[in-house]
This record gives sequence, C-alpha cells and structure tokens, in this order.
Amino acid sequence: MSEKLNQLKALLGEVSDINHAASVLGWDQQVNMPPGGGEARGRHLATLGKIAQEKFIADEVGRLLDDLKQEFAGVDPASDEAAMIRVASRNYDKAKRVPPEFVAEQAVVTSKAFEAWVEARGKSDFSIFAPHLEKVLELVKKYISFFPPADHPYDTLLDDFEPGMKTADVKVIFDSLRPKQVELIKAIASSKQVKDDFLHKNYNEKKLWDFGVDVVTQFGYDWSRGRQDKAPHPFETTFSVNDVRITTRFEAENPMATLFSTMHESGHAMYEQGVNQGYERTPLESGTSLAVHESQSRMWENLVGRSLPFWEHFFPKLKKTFSSQLDGVSLKTFYKGINKVEPSLIRVNADEATYNLHIMLRLELEIAMVEGKVKTKDLPELWNTKMKEYLGVTPPNDAKGVLQDIHWSGGAIGYFSTYALGNLVSVQLWEKINKDIRGLDDQIRKGDFGELLGWLRKNIHQHGQKFEPQTLVQNVTGSKITPEPYVRYLTKKYGEIYGL
Amino acid sequence: MSEKLNQLKALLGEVSDINHAASVLGWDQQVNMPPGGGEARGRHLATLGKIAQEKFIADEVGRLLDDLKQEFAGVDPASDEAAMIRVASRNYDKAKRVPPEFVAEQAVVTSKAFEAWVEARGKSDFSIFAPHLEKVLELVKKYISFFPPADHPYDTLLDDFEPGMKTADVKVIFDSLRPKQVELIKAIASSKQVKDDFLHKNYNEKKLWDFGVDVVTQFGYDWSRGRQDKAPHPFETTFSVNDVRITTRFEAENPMATLFSTMHESGHAMYEQGVNQGYERTPLESGTSLAVHESQSRMWENLVGRSLPFWEHFFPKLKKTFSSQLDGVSLKTFYKGINKVEPSLIRVNADEATYNLHIMLRLELEIAMVEGKVKTKDLPELWNTKMKEYLGVTPPNDAKGVLQDIHWSGGAIGYFSTYALGNLVSVQLWEKINKDIRGLDDQIRKGDFGELLGWLRKNIHQHGQKFEPQTLVQNVTGSKITPEPYVRYLTKKYGEIYGL
Repeated sequence: MSEKLNQLKALLGEVSDINHAASVLGWDQQVNMPPGGGEARGRHLATLGKIAQEKFIADEVGRLLDDLKQEFAGVDPASDEAAMIRVASRNYDKAKRVPPEFVAEQAVVTSKAFEAWVEARGKSDFSIFAPHLEKVLELVKKYISFFPPADHPYDTLLDDFEPGMKTADVKVIFDSLRPKQVELIKAIASSKQVKDDFLHKNYNEKKLWDFGVDVVTQFGYDWSRGRQDKAPHPFETTFSVNDVRITTRFEAENPMATLFSTMHESGHAMYEQGVNQGYERTPLESGTSLAVHESQSRMWENLVGRSLPFWEHFFPKLKKTFSSQLDGVSLKTFYKGINKVEPSLIRVNADEATYNLHIMLRLELEIAMVEGKVKTKDLPELWNTKMKEYLGVTPPNDAKGVLQDIHWSGGAIGYFSTYALGNLVSVQLWEKINKDIRGLDDQIRKGDFGELLGWLRKNIHQHGQKFEPQTLVQNVTGSKITPEPYVRYLTKKYGEIYGL
Repeated sequence: MSEKLNQLKALLGEVSDINHAASVLGWDQQVNMPPGGGEARGRHLATLGKIAQEKFIADEVGRLLDDLKQEFAGVDPASDEAAMIRVASRNYDKAKRVPPEFVAEQAVVTSKAFEAWVEARGKSDFSIFAPHLEKVLELVKKYISFFPPADHPYDTLLDDFEPGMKTADVKVIFDSLRPKQVELIKAIASSKQVKDDFLHKNYNEKKLWDFGVDVVTQFGYDWSRGRQDKAPHPFETTFSVNDVRITTRFEAENPMATLFSTMHESGHAMYEQGVNQGYERTPLESGTSLAVHESQSRMWENLVGRSLPFWEHFFPKLKKTFSSQLDGVSLKTFYKGINKVEPSLIRVNADEATYNLHIMLRLELEIAMVEGKVKTKDLPELWNTKMKEYLGVTPPNDAKGVLQDIHWSGGAIGYFSTYALGNLVSVQLWEKINKDIRGLDDQIRKGDFGELLGWLRKNIHQHGQKFEPQTLVQNVTGSKITPEPYVRYLTKKYGEIYGL
C-alpha cells in the first residue's frame, strides 16, 4: 500500500481516537455523571475537540491529501482507498475554511443563547430568546460565507449533515409530499377514531426494559459489542465498531415510548455495528449521513416495530407480561392503538403520519431565516399559522410552539430535514427489500429477522461512509431519494387502520 | 499574576484535561465496557497517553519552567505558585529522562509478560513466567539508569510513588515494625480464637450495597460530586475535584468485603473531593502520594469502620437489616469477628495485623531483585520461606505464592511499600486527631463524622500535592513517618480482642 496513505491513516487514526474518546465522555455525561462533574467535563471535551481539530487541519494532512489525490487519480473511484481520500479531502476542505476564532465565538454566543432559550421557554416568552436567535443567525450566515457560493445558501448547512444533498432537491421532495400528508391527516381526522387508552396505563418500567432488550436481541443487536443505559434523551453512540451503545428512557405517561425508543436506537446501533471492520480509524468509519442513519432507526422502529406481522409474533408475549393492562385488548386493537394518528403540538411525540409535517414546517422557517425573508419577531406567529395549516392545531403558547426545540439555540440549523428524509429512505429501501426477500412478512411473523439484517448489512451497513447518501440510495434502489414509496406506505397502512 | 505562569498553567491544564479524559475511559473500561470494546479502547488510551506525554514534555514547558524558577526564586516556597513550579519541574524532569522508545518497548514486554503471568498462574508454574520477569527486570534497571545515581537504585522507583521517600527510610521503619508484628501474630495464634462464622453466611448484595451507601453518606462522601458502581477490583478514580467516583464488588464467600471496600474507597474519594478547588488543572490537584492516599482509605475503613464506637452506632441497624444472619450475635462478638486475625496466603484478603507483613515480604524481594542479589528462579522458594517466617503459613503452590499478584508482570515495581506506609500514616494522624478533637469516639458513637472530616480537609485534603508526603506528615504530626503509633494501635486493639 502507498506509504503516504499509511501516513495519512496514522494521522487520521489519532483524530478518530480522540473523537471516540470524546464520545465516551459525552455518553458518560448523559448517562452517569453526577451534577458536580459538568463544568470540568465541558473543559475536557473542549480540550479534546481543540486537539482533534488541530491535528485534523494540520498542514501535513493537507500535503498528504494533495499528494494522494494525484497518486490515486487513475485508481477506481469505487475503491476503498479512493473513497477514503475523497471523504478525508471533503472534510479537510470544510474544516480548513472555518477559523478557530469563529468556533470560539460560536461557543460563547450559543452558550448564552441556550441559557436564554431555557428562560424563554420556561416563561413562554419568545422575546427573551429573540435577540439571541438573531445573533445565532448572524453566525450561521457568517459560517455560510466561509464557503464558496452554492445554489442556495442553505445548501452549505445541509451539506454538513447530508453530503451532496441540495436544498432544491429537498424542496421538490417535500412539495410533493406535503399536500398528500395533509390530505391523509384530514381524511383520518374525519373518520372513526381508534382506541389507545390501554397504552396509557401504569406499566412497569423494568418489564418494559426487559421486553425491549429481548426484542432488539432478536433483531440482531450484538450485546457483546454494546449495552443499553437510561438517559434523559435516548441516543445511540459509537466508540468503535465493536462498542456501540444505546440509551432509552421511561415516561410514565407514555410507557410504550421505552420500547419503541429501544427499537429506534438499536436501528442506529446495528448500522454502526455493521460497518466494515477494516474502515476503523479511517474517514469511512460510521454511517454515511443523518438521513441514511435515520432510515435504519425508523425502519426497525416503524416498518418492523409498528407493523402487524411484528406484533403477531410479539403480542402474545406482551400480553402475558402485562396481563392486567392489556386485558381484553385484541391484537388488532393493540396494533391500531400504537399507530393512532393524532396531530399534536410536539414533534418528538408525533406519529408516523404527522411527523414529517413538523419537519417541513421547521425547514421552511429555517430557509426563510437564512434567506433573510422572515423577521425574527414574526417567527411565533408564522409557526402557529403553519401548524394550523399543516396539522390543524394551534399552540396555546410559544413554549409549546416555536420555543419547543433546543436546536436553534445551539446554532444547529440545517439538519431537521434529515429526519423526514430518513423516513422516506426507510420505505424506499423497504420496497426494495420486499422484492429481494421473499416472504419477509412471514419471517417477521416468526420473529426471524436474520435475512433482513443480512440484507441491510450487505447493502447499507458495511459501506460506512464510502458512498454519499444519494449515491447509496440510487445504487441500492435504482433511484435517488423520492417520496412516492412513503406516500404509498402511509396511504395503505392508514387506509387499512382507519378504513379510508 | 505572572504572564509566564499563566502560560504554563494553560499548557498543563490541557495535559490535565487529557489525563482526566483517559481516566473516564479507564473507569468505563472497568465498569461498563462490553467485551468487544477492549481492543479499540486500548488504542484510544494509547493515543491520549501519547498526546498528554508529548504536550507535557514539550520544549515550551521546559523553557517556561526555567524562566519561572528564576522569576519565583525569591518567593515564599510555601506559596501555591512556588509549589506548582516545584512539582511541575520535578515531574517534567522525570518525564524528560525517559525516551519514548523505552515506553514503547516497555509496553511490548509487559504485555507479553502479562500473558505469561496469566498462563503461569493458571498452571501454577513459575517457570513459564520467569524469563518474562527477567526481561521486565532488565527494563526496570534500564529505567533506573536514566536517572542520576541515588543512595539506592530502588530509590528511583520509590520516588515515583512516594516523592522524597528513600529506601533506607522505609527499611528502618519496616525493620522496627516487622519483629513486633510477627510477635503479635504469634501471641494471637496461641490465644483463644474469635468466632466469625456469622460473617460467611448468605448476605443480600443489594442490602449490603445500600448499607455501605448510607455509611459513606454519613462519613461525608459527596454524592453530588461522585457515584458508586460495581467493578471486578474496587478502585477510586478522579475526573475532577467535583467528579470523584468509587467502585465496590460483591464476594459471596466474603460478603462484608462489599461494605469495607465501599468505606475504603470513600476514604480515597473524600481526599480527592477535598483538594483546594483552585488547584484544578494544576500540578497540585489530587492527593500527594500513594501512602498518604492509603492513609485516608485505611483510616475510614479500619480506624473508623472496624472500631467499636463505629459499630456501637451502626450495629443495631445492621442487625435489623440482616436479622437472620446476625441472630444471637452480640455487638462484641460482631466486633471481634470483623477483626479476626488469621495469617493467610493472599495479601488482598489480609487483616490489619498481618497485612503489613505481606508488604514487607514483597519489598524485600523487590529490593533484592533490583540489587541483583536474587536469581529469578529462586524467587518461589524465597517467597515461601519468608511466608513461613513472617506469617507462619506455607503456600501449597506458586499460584497462591509468588504468582498471586499481577504487579510484577506490568513492571510495577516500587510501590508496594506505600500500602504499608499508608497504614502507619493513618494511625500517626489518628493519634494527632484524637489530641485535637475531644471526644472523637463519642462523636463516632453518635454517627457524627463532621469534625473528623473537617480536620482531614483542613490538615490533609485541601493541600493536594503542595507538600511532599514526609513534609506533610511532619507538618501535621510533628514527626516524619514512624511505626510507633501503629504498633501501639495494634497492640492495644488486639490485646483487648484476644485478651493478650
């Protein structure tokens, strides 16, 4: 192998080690850390982040990349080596453009904005947050200015999370999707509602936890290379391909969330556990984008975990575990209950039929903000108007409206759309999977997920970041990300449930 | 403040951050990590260790230290600034002397030696380990050669763990101590034995855990700046002065170990929690030496936790918690049982009266090894001879003799004596404490540890590494480390228990 490629790998391997160490610290912060530990932990993470950044944008890395681009110019672009050089170059060029002073300034501004957001949400008073949001937005625009002009300024932000994806592409997809989802929700609203009172009883946390563990064990989540803990906000995190952890939480008023959250995070985790072991410590390690990642979590949570075949297998066991809570509840009733559509104010609790609309609303506001087409002070009203238009509900106050999400306070603008794209990709893959695997429903009905996971390993997981998301989806399904499969899926599923 | 001192603090602060990050990774490795995570974790730790070392021995650090030594030449040596410069210089000079190639070679040799030790202990065959131990010993001698000649070659090793302490000092202390401990044990052996069958019954792990938590809460261990987890080998670890964690373990055949181990580690932890907050990220953060650290853990475990006043307070509660196991057991019987003296083969299970003898045996062998006065092949016999002489027992095989401890395989030669020194310091402090605090026994009898912890905070904890151990002990007690208080303590305690 090329001597220079070995040198590059050694340098980037160290960066990867530092970033993974930081992930351990971040995990501990969410899962274990006593309250007193926060201040020092912030410093530890800042130091690791600074060192990783310094090492990554070192001139030596740049020189090696330049040399390697020449050396590998004639090599098959689909080779691992060419992909590594391509991805490393892309990330290097991006990182080089952002001055360290900017990163420091951003840390200060967003830290203050976060505090203001907490206060504003507590008092449900957007005016407390507004001046901070304006400063955050200025920084976002400054960030965009470090990069060459794109077709749309929002492209620069989106590209950080969904490499190669354009704002225009997302708009086309969402413009096609929105009216159909709005229409579907209206049809559901005017039909006979399903029961789900049995889901909101008193469920034992430990039993739910154990049930979730059994389910994802059957999925194929490898516990010898992972573990589950409790955290306030469920997440998956990767320390290496052989140590990929998940968390879940327990909500008394919504107990089933424990179970679905475990399934969701296991989808992320199985993706990470399935990446080619040879990619460790290279730029190709880990999943290729947020949308593809979300396609895996949503597939296991929704396409598998909220499907009828899945519960044909697991419901008898669930009913045995929670005999009093589910007394007299039939499989059909239970299945309908966990798929109840209910336009609601809060995104994170939204069902499959309404979730994307929350995302579209945010995306439209973000684009308008970046374009400078909306005044910060007008955001609450705009939010409420769109909520009414898309979901038919109106927030009673800003805390349950424009202030509900933490993201903007941290300057995290540009990735909301990946949540919705993930839903689309999950079903787009699902249609292909159901062509490739005969009788998948029957397998799921038997609790057999081996062939499904094998398909995902082979077609998605193993590739890590080798392919950009649109290329990967195209390679596997024959077309780029498209909303039609998702619309077909929603129409069929909810048509049956609500008798539309 | 001096501009250069600020520069030094910034550089050393980063090193401290990296080392603390590594501590988090090490803690996770012992407490949580799934089996698959080990290989990558080793790499992550190696990378962090390498970066911390590079940053610490950077020429810039050396230049700043040289300048600062001049700048602060006239400053009160007892000032924090002078202490920081002194401790940083000492550590810097040491670190500079050891070439990175040596560290790499050591890693390879000890990794193989560890594997050989595992096999040798499994087969109870010292000859498998012997050639590796010889290589380790060569490295130890090479390490010593990097430093200027000391009074004794072992001094160089000891100084890494007990700054300022000399082999000759330890020898004097141990030579005075050994015959008295041997004599005591013989007297105990020929007197009426105490009962402790009630300690080896079936105790519920969770209840023992909870009891231990209650005890150390009352001691003053601050849970808002710490937590306890399970680990195969109990330890304390520090991520910052505000995040100091402990672990414990459960042994079915020795259930009380859970409780005493929690108390022991809480002693280490309260030391770390009590260091001056202003020392964070400086060379003065954390305890000053292994012996002083051990004095704190042994004080809470033994001088408090195995005392009669302590159990006068806690025994009724323990008896309530474990009513069937302790049925008919009186406070006196219980107190004697937990203080039973029984010369045994394995150091880690040794009681207060015999523990130091295990240490002395090892120290003598280590010194002889470093002096080249013993052939590796003769170690097993020498071990057994000394065991018979000091403790009156003979190991049935090498696994329970010379091969029992992991330390030599890792090249960890030079710190065993600190365990015994810690015992001595604990009682030396204890005598002073009992002069300073009137009615301490009565306070303990009431479960009130506030004044005791306050004394330790003021006299020991807050100083961190500001004073070398001998200086600290001298400052507080009026003399350097001396064995007399410990002999007085053992004689009185066991005289009462065994009616000598």
